[in-house]
Amino acid sequence: MVLENQLVAGVDVGGTKILAVVIAPGGEIIGRAKKKTKSDKGPLEVLQRIVLTLQEAVEDAGVLWKDIAALGVGVPGMLDDEGAVVVTAPNLGWKNVNLRNFLSGELGVPVIAENDVNAGTYGEYILGAARGVESLVGVFVGTGIGSGILLNGQIFRGFNRIAGEIGHIPVVPEGGQPCSCGLRGCLETVSARWAINKRIHEQIKKGRKSLVTDLLKDKTQDIKSSVLARAMLGRDKLVAEVMEDAARYLGIALGCVIQFLNPQMIVLGGGVVQALGKDFYEAVHRSVCEHSFIKNLTGMRIEPSYLGDDAVVLGAAELARRRISEMSEKSGNS
Amino acid sequence: MVLENQLVAGVDVGGTKILAVVIAPGGEIIGRAKKKTKSDKGPLEVLQRIVLTLQEAVEDAGVLWKDIAALGVGVPGMLDDEGAVVVTAPNLGWKNVNLRNFLSGELGVPVIAENDVNAGTYGEYILGAARGVESLVGVFVGTGIGSGILLNGQIFRGFNRIAGEIGHIPVVPEGGQPCSCGLRGCLETVSARWAINKRIHEQIKKGRKSLVTDLLKDKTQDIKSSVLARAMLGRDKLVAEVMEDAARYLGIALGCVIQFLNPQMIVLGGGVVQALGKDFYEAVHRSVCEHSFIKNLTGMRIEPSYLGDDAVVLGAAELARRRISEMSEKSGNS
Repeated sequence: MVLENQLVAGVDVGGTKILAVVIAPGGEIIGRAKKKTKSDKGPLEVLQRIVLTLQEAVEDAGVLWKDIAALGVGVPGMLDDEGAVVVTAPNLGWKNVNLRNFLSGELGVPVIAENDVNAGTYGEYILGAARGVESLVGVFVGTGIGSGILLNGQIFRGFNRIAGEIGHIPVVPEGGQPCSCGLRGCLETVSARWAINKRIHEQIKKGRKSLVTDLLKDKTQDIKSSVLARAMLGRDKLVAEVMEDAARYLGIALGCVIQFLNPQMIVLGGGVVQALGKDFYEAVHRSVCEHSFIKNLTGMRIEPSYLGDDAVVLGAAELARRRISEMSEKSGNS
Repeated sequence: MVLENQLVAGVDVGGTKILAVVIAPGGEIIGRAKKKTKSDKGPLEVLQRIVLTLQEAVEDAGVLWKDIAALGVGVPGMLDDEGAVVVTAPNLGWKNVNLRNFLSGELGVPVIAENDVNAGTYGEYILGAARGVESLVGVFVGTGIGSGILLNGQIFRGFNRIAGEIGHIPVVPEGGQPCSCGLRGCLETVSARWAINKRIHEQIKKGRKSLVTDLLKDKTQDIKSSVLARAMLGRDKLVAEVMEDAARYLGIALGCVIQFLNPQMIVLGGGVVQALGKDFYEAVHRSVCEHSFIKNLTGMRIEPSYLGDDAVVLGAAELARRRISEMSEKSGNS
């Protein structure tokens, strides 16, 4: 059973929202739906909400479940070898959740789950900025920072399945801030949205003026990427300072990746990068030039994400298409 | 022609010396010879000296050239795709030297050349500390610092063939010293022997006392790893300070590698590591623990080089054995 000419579905299970799509053979999205995750209500509720979101996407596409050949699920956590069980997903509060059993039981289709960052990187490889690229690192900067490594189209997971933890490489080795992971001076402590938030709020508390104060409903509120973008447009000095640091350190981390792995391409995506656009991207690039040989590496490129918020769903769906085809071929069902 | 049961030869062409060996099928060295490189006399002279060194090694083994099935050459530089032409080797002053043509013409055996760090890493994989390891990074700290990446037994070269430039990842991103490569704050500026030398000599010039002054014949002389080791044994404070920094930053760089690539093993070798031994290794390890998840990565290990100075010759010879077997098989000569 080769799935090349069939419909597949994808879900991106985020900390706050679930996005589901139905995808035509060429990669075109023909149906989509979105719901809140409500992870505080526990895994079963979230799994049921995933099913509902998928059913809406299938309806939106005007097709039936029996037309869907495979389902791919992107999860912000670590999967087991088979892409069946979510071993751990801190943002969802999940441990050892057998996502595949539940979803394939409910929906009657083969299911493959994958770490969301790996799925997003694969999406850019199959349908986005990095088609046909032989060695690719996808770096996604949002609330946290993660990366996926794709070598000859295969996800490189590392020995303990933690490869790509770029958010926790030491970019402020001396006197760095404590990170959520227990280490100090990780990339996340300067460039992830949680740290950007913390720094801005600390400065405002100390009495620094910032447009952010007016843009938030209450003073302790989470500063979303869109608020950061608006503050930058308003030439807010505090936000500009913090984002300059965020960009510089992100460039240092990408410099490490280029010097050590020398991939053909780095795709840069995630909420922060998307919201802040060209200026942020250029600041990152200046820093990369200061901290790597990039100017002399002919053909090696850093590209913004092409698929944006759809990278994970598309990647998860296309990974499911490929893996389930491969599994069928192996078992002689071709 | 499978070379499994045949003798092979290896050469390590270093900046100061040429080391040649003859290797039995099981990996045992049955003959060896050494000569000065004399790279100042130009490529032809060096190539002729390589031939002489090899001839001595063959004599030492008590065999004839016709018994040698393949020759592998480790070179401190960048090779072309076929392992034939040395594109550039700064320490030798070479550019576009067709090493294979010359050596296979003179010696009548198939020749494969490889970057010395890659060869050394392969040596540890085939005969050393990392036998059967699926993902391996070999890090060699000497006058400079380089690393080789081996994934499933294959050398990972990167898109521009510069993968493994760990010596030039930014570990002092703010206010770092200028590096020989043109960047600032690279790992080499704190942990390579050239930088250790520079720092110690600068401090001595400023009037700081050090055992190094007595250990050197003249004050401006290059401080070899053995001198560093003797100064450490004598509890020299200046050398201890500089080496503590060198170890800490090396640990930071290894932390980056672990977080990003999560290899099964890192093999740590090179003149500095070998000469300084356990204390240096432990200082590196402490720093790695501060800057990575290593304590939680079950089975992931950092190991000292097992082959020491023989890693490059052994790796080069065994690479030649494998590649020439593969090439013969492809061309139907098996």
